[in-house]
Amino acid sequence: MSTEAPQEAVTLAQFLDSIAAPSATPGGGSVSALAGSLAAALVEMVINLTVGKKGFEGKEPELQKIREEAHSCREALTATIVQDSLAYQTVMNAFLLPRKTEDEKSKRKEEIQQALKKAADPPLFTTVTSLKVMKLCQEAVEKGNPRTISDAAVGALLADAAMGGGIFNVLINLSALEDQHFAERMKKELRRLEAEGATMKNIILARIQEKINCR
Amino acid sequence: MSTEAPQEAVTLAQFLDSIAAPSATPGGGSVSALAGSLAAALVEMVINLTVGKKGFEGKEPELQKIREEAHSCREALTATIVQDSLAYQTVMNAFLLPRKTEDEKSKRKEEIQQALKKAADPPLFTTVTSLKVMKLCQEAVEKGNPRTISDAAVGALLADAAMGGGIFNVLINLSALEDQHFAERMKKELRRLEAEGATMKNIILARIQEKINCR
Repeated sequence: MSTEAPQEAVTLAQFLDSIAAPSATPGGGSVSALAGSLAAALVEMVINLTVGKKGFEGKEPELQKIREEAHSCREALTATIVQDSLAYQTVMNAFLLPRKTEDEKSKRKEEIQQALKKAADPPLFTTVTSLKVMKLCQEAVEKGNPRTISDAAVGALLADAAMGGGIFNVLINLSALEDQHFAERMKKELRRLEAEGATMKNIILARIQEKINCR
Repeated sequence: MSTEAPQEAVTLAQFLDSIAAPSATPGGGSVSALAGSLAAALVEMVINLTVGKKGFEGKEPELQKIREEAHSCREALTATIVQDSLAYQTVMNAFLLPRKTEDEKSKRKEEIQQALKKAADPPLFTTVTSLKVMKLCQEAVEKGNPRTISDAAVGALLADAAMGGGIFNVLINLSALEDQHFAERMKKELRRLEAEGATMKNIILARIQEKINCR
């Protein structure tokens, strides 16, 4: 896939082929963003199969709020599929800069470090936004049509994978970074997000297990 | 998305829209199969970025074997995206059968039970095949180019989500099934697969953490 191609024009089969292809992008960062998008779409599905159904009268305003938030997360995460690839290409371009003179070496090193810092942004965004999606999955489980419980469950699993994938992709950039202060601050933030996501995932899955066993 | 449409013709954006739409298919079962497909594509990517690289001379035969297996899992899981939807539609159609006379009621009940059993096949296939993909992720982590470690990591996370999603989708079908003998046998098999997947995921992620920290 050309990362400049509009997302709409890429078919599922082409996207899978472009992941498998022998090029560094799109890779795990883009797939993580897509996983978050799929989770958000599942939240929208749950709400769409709840609004207007018997037993959910008068719940429209809060259900619509969940759906709107999920839709906005989905759009942002879908855009991140390409942004992640572009950010990583900037890193690769920096590595290709000339390094014959001392000046060139110093400029190249600086460009690489700058690019690495920027390349951490898309996977960090994927992590933060997928945590939001996880919270929306919890709302979908609590407030949605019980018939859609397995869809909300898959949403939570995908949001979790998206968060984990985002975290690995930030960490891999940090491991090559010289600014230890920046790296440590970022790692602390990642640990916080990871812990919050894990707690929420466990709450959601326990609730779903409970509901499935009660059917 | 029309579930009869060839997979190749469905764009990423259309697929996401079809998940979000107020229809029961495609839903969590199809998304789980796609998650497994994405994981398999990431294994192929890792191998494609390893074969022919310095330090991997003479490893072609074993690397190509991993890639071929990953490709075959990807194709099978991609086909399951549609098969899952079709199997669930058969369940929904059975629920729509007439139920005025005793004969009709009895026939409808039998059709529903048959359809529920068959609808467990695609998510069970997703679970079993995603466990294979998880094993391929482990091989990719051990034998692949260290530069692709975060791609293999995302592969393992997605394979895990695909397995979990498959399991939830089988369970939801079993919960409406009257054949308790069948349901118990299936649940036992799911627990075995789940335990094997969880052990393998933990081994892979611990190995990746170790490798990232050593960079």
